Amino acid sequence: MSNILDRVNMPEDLRKLNIEEKEKLCKEIRKLIIDITSKNGGHVASNLGVVELTVAIHSIFNTPEDKIIWDVGHQCYVHKILTGRKKEFEKIRQFKGISGFPKICESEYDNFNTGHSSTSISIATGMARARDILKQKHEVIAVIGDGSLTGGMALEALNDAGSSKTNIKVILNDNEMSISKNVGGIPLYLSKIRTKTGYTRSNRKIKEITNKIPVIGKPIVSFAHYTKQVIKRAIIPNMYFEDIGFKYLGPVDGHNIKKLEDILQRSQRIEGPVLIHVITKKGKGYKLAEENPDKFHGISAYDKQTGKTTKNKDYSQVFGNKLINLANKDKKIVAVTAAMKDGTGLTEFAKKFPDRFFDVGIAEQHALGLIAGMAKAGLKPVMPIYSSFLQRGYDQIVHDIAISSIPVTICIDRAGIVGNDGETHQGIFDLSFLSSIPNIVIMAPKNFEELEKMLEFAVNANKPVFIRYPRGGENYKFEKTEKINLGEAEIIQEGTDLSIIAIGKMVGKAKQIADMLPDKKIEIINTRFLKPLDEKTIIKSMEKTKHVITIEDNLLKGGLASAVLETINKNKLENIKIKTYGYDDIFIEHGTVEELEDKYGLTAKTISKDIQNI
Amino acid sequence: MSNILDRVNMPEDLRKLNIEEKEKLCKEIRKLIIDITSKNGGHVASNLGVVELTVAIHSIFNTPEDKIIWDVGHQCYVHKILTGRKKEFEKIRQFKGISGFPKICESEYDNFNTGHSSTSISIATGMARARDILKQKHEVIAVIGDGSLTGGMALEALNDAGSSKTNIKVILNDNEMSISKNVGGIPLYLSKIRTKTGYTRSNRKIKEITNKIPVIGKPIVSFAHYTKQVIKRAIIPNMYFEDIGFKYLGPVDGHNIKKLEDILQRSQRIEGPVLIHVITKKGKGYKLAEENPDKFHGISAYDKQTGKTTKNKDYSQVFGNKLINLANKDKKIVAVTAAMKDGTGLTEFAKKFPDRFFDVGIAEQHALGLIAGMAKAGLKPVMPIYSSFLQRGYDQIVHDIAISSIPVTICIDRAGIVGNDGETHQGIFDLSFLSSIPNIVIMAPKNFEELEKMLEFAVNANKPVFIRYPRGGENYKFEKTEKINLGEAEIIQEGTDLSIIAIGKMVGKAKQIADMLPDKKIEIINTRFLKPLDEKTIIKSMEKTKHVITIEDNLLKGGLASAVLETINKNKLENIKIKTYGYDDIFIEHGTVEELEDKYGLTAKTISKDIQNI
Repeated sequence: MSNILDRVNMPEDLRKLNIEEKEKLCKEIRKLIIDITSKNGGHVASNLGVVELTVAIHSIFNTPEDKIIWDVGHQCYVHKILTGRKKEFEKIRQFKGISGFPKICESEYDNFNTGHSSTSISIATGMARARDILKQKHEVIAVIGDGSLTGGMALEALNDAGSSKTNIKVILNDNEMSISKNVGGIPLYLSKIRTKTGYTRSNRKIKEITNKIPVIGKPIVSFAHYTKQVIKRAIIPNMYFEDIGFKYLGPVDGHNIKKLEDILQRSQRIEGPVLIHVITKKGKGYKLAEENPDKFHGISAYDKQTGKTTKNKDYSQVFGNKLINLANKDKKIVAVTAAMKDGTGLTEFAKKFPDRFFDVGIAEQHALGLIAGMAKAGLKPVMPIYSSFLQRGYDQIVHDIAISSIPVTICIDRAGIVGNDGETHQGIFDLSFLSSIPNIVIMAPKNFEELEKMLEFAVNANKPVFIRYPRGGENYKFEKTEKINLGEAEIIQEGTDLSIIAIGKMVGKAKQIADMLPDKKIEIINTRFLKPLDEKTIIKSMEKTKHVITIEDNLLKGGLASAVLETINKNKLENIKIKTYGYDDIFIEHGTVEELEDKYGLTAKTISKDIQNI
Repeated sequence: MSNILDRVNMPEDLRKLNIEEKEKLCKEIRKLIIDITSKNGGHVASNLGVVELTVAIHSIFNTPEDKIIWDVGHQCYVHKILTGRKKEFEKIRQFKGISGFPKICESEYDNFNTGHSSTSISIATGMARARDILKQKHEVIAVIGDGSLTGGMALEALNDAGSSKTNIKVILNDNEMSISKNVGGIPLYLSKIRTKTGYTRSNRKIKEITNKIPVIGKPIVSFAHYTKQVIKRAIIPNMYFEDIGFKYLGPVDGHNIKKLEDILQRSQRIEGPVLIHVITKKGKGYKLAEENPDKFHGISAYDKQTGKTTKNKDYSQVFGNKLINLANKDKKIVAVTAAMKDGTGLTEFAKKFPDRFFDVGIAEQHALGLIAGMAKAGLKPVMPIYSSFLQRGYDQIVHDIAISSIPVTICIDRAGIVGNDGETHQGIFDLSFLSSIPNIVIMAPKNFEELEKMLEFAVNANKPVFIRYPRGGENYKFEKTEKINLGEAEIIQEGTDLSIIAIGKMVGKAKQIADMLPDKKIEIINTRFLKPLDEKTIIKSMEKTKHVITIEDNLLKGGLASAVLETINKNKLENIKIKTYGYDDIFIEHGTVEELEDKYGLTAKTISKDIQNI
């Protein structure tokens, strides 16, 4: 039998196939995804879940004329394979290869750069309104997962799109999962829709029951109650969507191409906002991923047969273990996550303390408000969150936490360069957007042990504390870490030629640099705190050496570099030569951390060469 | 007749009154609010709308043991009057007087500092869960307006609270208004609930209709369709709340104290999350405010008889007029607002271009995604937004706009110190959180004419452009403004003794300072752009004068001061003496702009005195 995928490069090739061929194609695509992601890592489960859906969308809609917006975008692999990037798919997520997310610059089929959750309905509504004003005719389709639907931005957009009267299709890809298992009332609501199997059966039920009700003679209240319950169970669940202005179609089996194509064609005949409810299974067709969709959500290279990955001890694990240890002793400690339970190291905590663990789903803003309320009422909430997703909560940090100096502990995981997920996921903004917020404490540990000490410090600090640490593991073996005191830096080694002021994982890099330059008397200061900065220790060192470099895994603007410059100015220090290392004013693409640090001049080797003549 | 308010200082006094006395009390409270706000300005309409509701809440719930969280908090005047602050109410919103928002430091009855919309359900859910874990017994009550309910954070919180099973009451204060008239599917949905008058009548309807349906012999489909329509109209609207886990009570007349007290008592007997739907009228009892709730939302001092305020020409008006002018010539220009139509000067635009105007309700995140989609699809969207509310969209600015360099124009109104609304509304963070975002352009005009020129520049710049300007009017009469070029500063006057580098309204202040120091040869540079900063012009000036001050209406950290320090460092300039003026690392309380500038050393008089010996 000939290989169908060999013949399919673009959607027009796809449109020539019959259903049977498409089904075969889906198998081939699944194999390709598993082959490549097992080497490159990536988002496996979500892509295996949308193979048929993607095939159906590109079969029925006239892409690229019709515009598809993939929410989050990590489920775009099938789309990329079918839109001219089959060959490039081998290098997906690799340095200089194609991105794991939609990218306008890669293809006219990619309509928007995405990476964060819950944005697609807003973007699509904007494009649909632009189309109307510009008197164009194409369709605009947002494809969004049920997990993303709980994000505030998506709910805001549903409200607006529903009442817009514009032609917009929202395909709800309902797999009962965000990154972790979904939680909350909306998923509950969707599950109620899923359990109904279509109008016909429901209607029969109503009829049966209605038949049994004596029309006259029954007390009104109990009759009404009865009717209400029946209707509620049978017909109503989709009505919320209809009430806010959408025409609802579905639910449909998301792995049946024929049914998918039918429902998409049906949606084309409807004017105004349409919501198409598609039921899919994450990891579909790959047993290991079906059984462990969480593990196969975003995964590093794995063994195809066993699913095994090589996972070294990382900061997330260290955080999770230490939190359990602290929570054992202090009953006021609770943990909150916005759908990042496994990724942030909370799996064990959730098992051990189910009553003190809260997963609110993709809802960063609410999560921050929630911990503010908890802390105000006497608990000690700890919330780990990826740096790039904390960006969603800037206003809540200012308004709900900092203004009233509410004592919460926020652990910023995946801070700094994260690697292959690329520009939307690089955590290089947090020091910049946090440093100007009054009342808060910002820390970063140089190694695992320091993270443990900082966490213990934070939950007892009675202040809003942020601790940021990178994806992955330690980069240097340090001696034992001493006690953490508020606003106190640590002098790692003394010297008279040059001060290296570093924060977080860059303290290890400073040590590597010093090791490479054994003839130089280098003083290394681990600031530990970006805020409050230990000005006294830093000034003393700078006045001694007169030559300073700062190193940070963040943008230069607004991070450690800026803070040291401000310190020099405020204290009127003179004749200090300072050089700052960090990321310039640009977005950083995907690649391994090492490749990116090399490109941007942040390896120990580059820096040591750069400063050897100071 | 004795004055009842004289006898009521605290909720316990209130609880001794009968319904008739409470009704009289409400009248007296309304009179007090109108008396004081007509002098001090403030949020009139929303407070007049919740007089009975506040009286009922404090009558039925055991405050301060039971915790009330007021969403936004601008409707807290009645609450403040009834909780020991009747006398202090005279100085509400005034410098050193009580705040116009709940403040923990003012009273144990104020449970959380609020000011921004849509946070109350999150905070209350956090407090309720804390109560459960700490084995306490009190009630937690969030009071939220229907406008705030469209905010993503509130929708995220509803999802979590509904499924939480914890005892929490959400009082939905439904007045069909946010700041402007509400928009979108959720308000539509609420209006459907309002139109039903209670279960009894609905049930009768169903019975009537059901009676008319022959139980056997009718085609199933049409029967089902018929039933569905009937049920939908009659019973169902509240079911979304019930489907996501809330027990729904209401709707109830929010100006009938007896009914309010009854429903609140009923809610106390229910375990788990309860939503109480209360219908109120903004401005209730004051004809002028009932008729113009938008105008009386947040208002400056006004004439009680006529409602007239003294309104001078301000930046918002100038923006609105110029946008109409530009939109007349360029059909791709559209305007988007998140419920700030009137405040940002878009009223006329909306009338003139109804098809090119989009009010998405309180939904800042969606608004930013929407304009990103519009711009990607070929329009030129312009979105004015208050500085403090733009904080809600930090991630959307980074992720949906800056990464792809999407050409939108965002006009940041109320930037810098805004005055009497206080710390939650001061727009002193925008330069700090924006300056580290790559790809964007940040500008600020020195006067009205420069705003007009900047707006024209922005809509044609093909880049993401942010223009920030203050609340209120001009502070200096400048000569004609020349054309704006990307990244080019303007030299206002040349000099050799001292460079003043200023941005936005502080350029006028620099002029005032120079006028006060006629003997000094002061060079004044209007940077116009914070990003890209005109380093060439600034360096040339600094090298000439060697003495520099920077002035900005923003935090020092991350704003102009930081940018100039970075410029000096990057270009290795030596022996420059620099002093930076702006706001230190603290939150700024309420007071007039003049009072606050005086307190924080930012008047022309203080600065000129400070620098006279340079």
